[in-house]
Amino acid sequence: MLYLIGLGLSDETDITVKGLEIVRRAARVYLEAYTSILLVDKSVLESYYGREVILADREMVESASDDILADAQNVDVAFLVVGDPFGATTHTDLVLRARALSIPISTVPNASIMSAIGATGLQLYNFGQTVSMVFFTETWKPASFYDRIRENRNIGLHTLVLLDIKVKEQSLENMARGRKIYEPPRYMTVGQCAAQMLEIEQMKREEGEGQHGVYGEESLAIGAARVGGKTEKFVSGTLKQLCDADELLGGPLHSLVLLGRRTHELESDYAREFAVDKEEWDRIWKRDYEGKQ
Amino acid sequence: MLYLIGLGLSDETDITVKGLEIVRRAARVYLEAYTSILLVDKSVLESYYGREVILADREMVESASDDILADAQNVDVAFLVVGDPFGATTHTDLVLRARALSIPISTVPNASIMSAIGATGLQLYNFGQTVSMVFFTETWKPASFYDRIRENRNIGLHTLVLLDIKVKEQSLENMARGRKIYEPPRYMTVGQCAAQMLEIEQMKREEGEGQHGVYGEESLAIGAARVGGKTEKFVSGTLKQLCDADELLGGPLHSLVLLGRRTHELESDYAREFAVDKEEWDRIWKRDYEGKQ
Repeated sequence: MLYLIGLGLSDETDITVKGLEIVRRAARVYLEAYTSILLVDKSVLESYYGREVILADREMVESASDDILADAQNVDVAFLVVGDPFGATTHTDLVLRARALSIPISTVPNASIMSAIGATGLQLYNFGQTVSMVFFTETWKPASFYDRIRENRNIGLHTLVLLDIKVKEQSLENMARGRKIYEPPRYMTVGQCAAQMLEIEQMKREEGEGQHGVYGEESLAIGAARVGGKTEKFVSGTLKQLCDADELLGGPLHSLVLLGRRTHELESDYAREFAVDKEEWDRIWKRDYEGKQ
Repeated sequence: MLYLIGLGLSDETDITVKGLEIVRRAARVYLEAYTSILLVDKSVLESYYGREVILADREMVESASDDILADAQNVDVAFLVVGDPFGATTHTDLVLRARALSIPISTVPNASIMSAIGATGLQLYNFGQTVSMVFFTETWKPASFYDRIRENRNIGLHTLVLLDIKVKEQSLENMARGRKIYEPPRYMTVGQCAAQMLEIEQMKREEGEGQHGVYGEESLAIGAARVGGKTEKFVSGTLKQLCDADELLGGPLHSLVLLGRRTHELESDYAREFAVDKEEWDRIWKRDYEGKQ
């Protein structure tokens, strides 16, 4: 049996009892470690489980999945995923490959950022589609998120923005020379995300697309850090304010929510508690959101 | 401390290790039992936790929350919620009340139907806002879900429909006479939901609103039962087919997903595995969805 087991969002004790029992008796235990991370190291998991944990990088999952699935018709293989196995990234390919090999599959769900983000006080019913933000480079600034946010904002809905992480990436030079040397991991911050959003907004306005803009420096948003963990932290304010909020938020992982026009007064009251500047929050709330549902 | 602890979706072993440790040492343990249910009885939880569990009905949470919060400045109170504490229903009121009483609050996230629904093979990124469906009566057929679904479908997104449950409801007669006699619990099925959706669509067409309709008898959807549990079951087909799929799906809880035009071919391939009639699925997929992104 192939077990896809969610680990939750924070530390080794966020696994469910059901998941832990499977991990302790599985023949092999893999940890998917390229789309998200826990706030603890692999060694902590290994000592907590009393088991060796094999790191599964993107290459292994996408190109060598048969190693992961070896003999899973006869023995139990646990494939651990931070968050929920069907959260931000589904592992459809692995499941389809297992199906093709007649391997039975079972899933153990767990918390996902997609529901845990409710800890901001925003109603999950008021969220539109979730978008991803990748690290821009000088020459590559993919802006498909912008149209998705426009769609959400036209309806008045919130947008959860999931932020890029770069784990086990090679520099172009090392890749070209075939050297398996990897860069240190990078985790996008709320400040970087807010700055990239404003950069694209500026670019779109200059191109004359959507003259009124989809959002702007004074749009209200909430930065979230280490959601579900003991050191969980929220900071709310304008996109411009959030460009400089990384110090307040602390270490990774970060996410961002852009508020929709349909924001209920209770949601605003709750989010206001985290505001960088409550007076500024109130001023913009009254001007741009209150009663605009 | 007030702990809001998610129980996950299925049985007593879906609690996280962190949550279980808190439950076992808390001074009092409450179970919120009116917005969702686990697939096991309270007595199973009590024997698994080795603790008495107090059922918190809507009346207690909304009108007598100070009983729940009593002395939580000094002792630990565990408030258990099926799914994620911030999932389908947030308990903002209880949290705000605790804040006002200077009670510290901590949340233990868990799986929510809002991410576990990814087990259908549909990408969570392709979902719009979630809607709720309540039991219609002869005189009360609230249709606000219809406009929300229209918004999602205009963008091409999937819609997750969460289905009503009625627990500890009084009949009108018993309520009028002040008799605390409660009706047996009722859980809406996928068949009932699909039929109510088609009823409203028919009504809206007769009223001339949206002559082309938002969806119809041949719209593709997936019925889901006991998501995250050992007996999890999916049935896919047209809304008309799903009207008669309750026997295939089995017992509660049910949810429904209405597919959006942006459905990716891989999503369709995955969902087709559960189809009542694969040929019919293929026919409608080719006609109404394929290449319509």
